[in-house]
Amino acid sequence: MKDIQKYIQENKERFLNELVELLKIPSISADSAYKTDVLKTAEAVKLRLEQAGCDFVEINETPGNPIVYGEKIIDKNLPTVLVYGHYDVQPPNPINLWDSPPFEPVIKTTDKHPDGAIFARGACDDKGQMYMHVKAMEFMTNTNQLPCNVKFMIEGEEEVGSVNLGDFVKNNHDKLKNDVILISDTGMIANDVPSITTGLRGLSYVEVEVTGPNRDLHSGLYGGAVANPINVLTKMIAQLHEENNHITIPGFYDRVEELSKEERAEMAKAPFNLENYKKALDIDTVYGEAGYTTNERNSIRPTLDVNGIWGGYTGEGAKTVIASKAYAKISMRLVPNQDWKEITNLFQTHFEAIAPEGVKVKVNPHHGGQGYVTPIDSIGYQAASNAYRDAFGKTPIPQRSGGSIPIVSLFEQELKSKTILMGFGLDSDAIHSPNEHFGIWNYLKGIETIPLFYKYFTELSK
Amino acid sequence: MKDIQKYIQENKERFLNELVELLKIPSISADSAYKTDVLKTAEAVKLRLEQAGCDFVEINETPGNPIVYGEKIIDKNLPTVLVYGHYDVQPPNPINLWDSPPFEPVIKTTDKHPDGAIFARGACDDKGQMYMHVKAMEFMTNTNQLPCNVKFMIEGEEEVGSVNLGDFVKNNHDKLKNDVILISDTGMIANDVPSITTGLRGLSYVEVEVTGPNRDLHSGLYGGAVANPINVLTKMIAQLHEENNHITIPGFYDRVEELSKEERAEMAKAPFNLENYKKALDIDTVYGEAGYTTNERNSIRPTLDVNGIWGGYTGEGAKTVIASKAYAKISMRLVPNQDWKEITNLFQTHFEAIAPEGVKVKVNPHHGGQGYVTPIDSIGYQAASNAYRDAFGKTPIPQRSGGSIPIVSLFEQELKSKTILMGFGLDSDAIHSPNEHFGIWNYLKGIETIPLFYKYFTELSK
Repeated sequence: MKDIQKYIQENKERFLNELVELLKIPSISADSAYKTDVLKTAEAVKLRLEQAGCDFVEINETPGNPIVYGEKIIDKNLPTVLVYGHYDVQPPNPINLWDSPPFEPVIKTTDKHPDGAIFARGACDDKGQMYMHVKAMEFMTNTNQLPCNVKFMIEGEEEVGSVNLGDFVKNNHDKLKNDVILISDTGMIANDVPSITTGLRGLSYVEVEVTGPNRDLHSGLYGGAVANPINVLTKMIAQLHEENNHITIPGFYDRVEELSKEERAEMAKAPFNLENYKKALDIDTVYGEAGYTTNERNSIRPTLDVNGIWGGYTGEGAKTVIASKAYAKISMRLVPNQDWKEITNLFQTHFEAIAPEGVKVKVNPHHGGQGYVTPIDSIGYQAASNAYRDAFGKTPIPQRSGGSIPIVSLFEQELKSKTILMGFGLDSDAIHSPNEHFGIWNYLKGIETIPLFYKYFTELSK
Repeated sequence: MKDIQKYIQENKERFLNELVELLKIPSISADSAYKTDVLKTAEAVKLRLEQAGCDFVEINETPGNPIVYGEKIIDKNLPTVLVYGHYDVQPPNPINLWDSPPFEPVIKTTDKHPDGAIFARGACDDKGQMYMHVKAMEFMTNTNQLPCNVKFMIEGEEEVGSVNLGDFVKNNHDKLKNDVILISDTGMIANDVPSITTGLRGLSYVEVEVTGPNRDLHSGLYGGAVANPINVLTKMIAQLHEENNHITIPGFYDRVEELSKEERAEMAKAPFNLENYKKALDIDTVYGEAGYTTNERNSIRPTLDVNGIWGGYTGEGAKTVIASKAYAKISMRLVPNQDWKEITNLFQTHFEAIAPEGVKVKVNPHHGGQGYVTPIDSIGYQAASNAYRDAFGKTPIPQRSGGSIPIVSLFEQELKSKTILMGFGLDSDAIHSPNEHFGIWNYLKGIETIPLFYKYFTELSK
């Protein structure tokens, strides 16, 4: 594309400031207290899409948070790219571990980001990566280089399972009709090792509740004589893995895609330094399913993790109490062929089955989604690969990600098109964690790479 | 004692109102935010002791909460009773489970308390039971029937392990010199089955912290590849009991006092209805150490209970995070001969030993205390037994309590005198729980019984 680096240089400051403004709005979808901020963010996204050159932009109400849709159709005979992203963010807690307030963006340099990074909740996941597409659109329209049609679908519930996006997609096949779906909500290996995500894990997220006595009890008078819901919950969770860290839920592995020796050997070529990995996390050793490497454990293997646990007295000091109830949030990452609804049922059946007498157990399924794999011989993948090659000067490595974007498999099912995952963040960007950040270099490099994808995809589609 | 029932009838309303005023002050020792309320309560207790007839009352500062001391010495040659109690209370949470605000006392009738009960945090534990002694003192001084010397020691840190009372006792042997120590901080079997607590369990309270990665991580990118501190903590806690619910800490049972068949048969005579017990707690079955009855499990056997657990995301909705840290508060109830400091060390050594690679484990000992047994052939026990017999018309049953008053064994060690535990509350009074209450009948019956103890103890001491 002509003059793209020049355009980025000239507008760099504005690109940054516009993102900073977006990051200041605490659009936390998991906490209803932030509903008005969520709506404010949707309005802001609508405005930015209009300013970037969309001919038509609308805010679509849903039973939850609205979905912003925008489009610019230049020629019905040209291919159409559908950009998906989300404007909602993860909750910032534990808030005390942030070095600066999560919704007051600051720019600081880091080892991995010598040119500086924007620190704020949502900087990388996904406001920053979503906004790259808006600025790439601006460049293509302002310089009359938009080579095809473009549609935007930016939702506000990705961090809570995209609960209403499914219906929106099902009910808007024509509006969302496209030839390829483009998403920047993943990462790449390193700034000098570009990569494209070709696989995602599925997800099943549940909340469990264990109830013992009908009220909190004095642990002296009742201790040892009644089932303690917290002790019971820990016993039940502990049973979900055996000594080799295989998951014990009957049927859990039945549909798991087993990769061939060759595929695993291919994966093993991705640069990975165990010592640096441990050092970055300050752990003395890695931990996981026997028989698999770290890169396999977090990508091609399903997992079960407790994301939160609570019960009894958690305040300052001591309280000698036996709680009436104990709770945990548990999520399972799934691999291709595992069906998240089936896994959720298997979990529920098993968890209820291992409950000892003396307690009542409730399993509340939260949400979930299927895994996904993109074929690297598709036009979309080739276009993305060429775009990275031009922008980074290196052919990107295809890699499986451990993360989940539940909606991707639904896109394919409903819209019959493939999704290309062009991620520009780094694993070290601390998404979902305190001090989330996004490299300025990565932000601008994304804006540079995306128009090249449009160019190559249009050419390869001819 | 002359006219005691008449005196109680005439002053009943005032006795209730004075207690209600005391209960309105939220003297929560576990939470430093309530420090001023704690000090306010100490001042109130000082005033009430002066009004009840003490010749000398003082507030003794400590590094923590003050200890109120009062005395009335009528004759150096007469025996001296030292009354111990505490004016601090447990935290009220979970606050949402209270039917009325914990520090706005209300009077309601219950099945067990047809004459009404005062609902408020501290109503039974221990403001209500402590204040019975103040009103009994008032009666004896106002009617010139005080038969011996009396001393009061009312502390403000019982609910957080009496951390500063030990030094106070060690440094004030002369001031606290006595012939018997009288405490009302336990319960009795039922209003028509009076009982005296002859045994208490010891306590070891610890807080544990498991640290995995140095920051919260995205469970998709790292799930399955690093040790999840919450999963690890549940595994470690689960290992602390084996399938028969014996505690697995090496050496834990080495010093446990084993009761004879005869003693256990004697215990089994105490009225106990398993169906009512389960019904009252709404549980389908009891649970505990194999080979022991419910009454044995919560009195003569040591136990280990998690009193609180927390880690990761516990808010509304879902957060796919692997927490950096997970925590639990764990307490062990100990029986006579087990040394709480030794048990705390055994726990720490064992818990650190079972930590898997990939995490760091910290054990922070909170506080503790030794168990205690009162001989039923002592003058003090006989005086108490006679007092109950006169007031209740029934000889009380000696019973072991599962609770702990860590300071009791220290009293014996430092002051060389026995403690008599005259409790007037019921297990169903929900101490340490939401809706704690104390029967008005029990409150007034306590005020009636205590002076009789003074009378008999003085007579039997001749």
